[in-house]
Amino acid sequence: MVKHFDEELQDLNNQILKMGAFAEEAIFKSIESLRERDRNKALEVINNDKLIDELELVIDEKCLDLIARHQPMAGDLRFITTGMKINAELERIIDIAVDICQRVSEIADKPLLKPLVDIPRLASVAQGMVKMAIDSFVKRDIQTAKKIMLLDSDADNLRNAIQKELIEDYMVKDGQTAPRAVPLLLIARFLERICDHATNIAEDVIYMVEAKVVKHHPEELK
Amino acid sequence: MVKHFDEELQDLNNQILKMGAFAEEAIFKSIESLRERDRNKALEVINNDKLIDELELVIDEKCLDLIARHQPMAGDLRFITTGMKINAELERIIDIAVDICQRVSEIADKPLLKPLVDIPRLASVAQGMVKMAIDSFVKRDIQTAKKIMLLDSDADNLRNAIQKELIEDYMVKDGQTAPRAVPLLLIARFLERICDHATNIAEDVIYMVEAKVVKHHPEELK
Repeated sequence: MVKHFDEELQDLNNQILKMGAFAEEAIFKSIESLRERDRNKALEVINNDKLIDELELVIDEKCLDLIARHQPMAGDLRFITTGMKINAELERIIDIAVDICQRVSEIADKPLLKPLVDIPRLASVAQGMVKMAIDSFVKRDIQTAKKIMLLDSDADNLRNAIQKELIEDYMVKDGQTAPRAVPLLLIARFLERICDHATNIAEDVIYMVEAKVVKHHPEELK
Repeated sequence: MVKHFDEELQDLNNQILKMGAFAEEAIFKSIESLRERDRNKALEVINNDKLIDELELVIDEKCLDLIARHQPMAGDLRFITTGMKINAELERIIDIAVDICQRVSEIADKPLLKPLVDIPRLASVAQGMVKMAIDSFVKRDIQTAKKIMLLDSDADNLRNAIQKELIEDYMVKDGQTAPRAVPLLLIARFLERICDHATNIAEDVIYMVEAKVVKHHPEELK
């Protein structure tokens, strides 16, 4: 049975939702593995990466195939090419979760430097931003996309606070803490980069929706 | 005068070459600003970022426009969508050069922690990889793309050596060095991420060229 173009766009939506769910899960598990210093859980995320790379290729091929076969008009074409970009962003987000897990597996047998408070908080900001970013894409919802961009500076502030504390209250006072403090500092930076990728998705969605409006209703600009 | 499709593809090539030249220059200037602790030079790179963002949008629009107007076949379509991806990678590379310059402007009035040897070496690996990556795209040259992928592990090793030295020989021995050592450690990581983006470009080029061969000459696979 030949699928209609609309059904194929719906399939694309679903595949991107699936990639988004993988990304959220990878962030969640990476921080759980840190909290529990559970090397096996960290390895699960690391080993899952090959599967994700394959899904990224499948989505990419689907997008190219849709363009080649259906030669979609401006709005749909932009939806599909934005889908390709978001696919790449999500794959990067999962790569960063893998980076976190690699740091976790390095420090898993040492005691944690300090009780984790701000890092799990930043992780939950990151996870929320990724979820909102996917939602804003599938619903073409510019309001949610704009909210994400506001959250990004909260993430920056949290990352800076974590970094400052680790340098000034730990490493400067006792240099011996550096081998345990640096991985935490990097994990905070990784989480903030995940927020940056969610923000990139939000920007892509705004650009997609607004350009579509402009192209379809140029009179609205006057 | 209406341009031929081939001329338009050539324009796209040229714009990506221009973006690539900006990326190389940004990396070069970021490390020069570090070496000379020259905050003004760092600011030049930071302030140039808006221009780059605009060029990224122009290239993106050009790609979408080419697809919409010419409805290119498999090989050309893949060339254009790969161009979109490479455009995004180059923009990220320049963003990372901006990150480096922001760290430089933080530490510009303090004496350098140590003479810089490995960081400029890593920077020149990064710059070379970006140059090769652009070349491999415009020439559709899979051999150069494969060479880039081999260089990426050199970059990883160099980054790891820099990080290990900063932690073990500086921060652990004297915690007071942390505020100057952490920015250098981050700069080494930034440079290694630039190498990762060059590797992403190489992968995209290989994928573009090989998929094209497969699609155009499926008999070669038998």
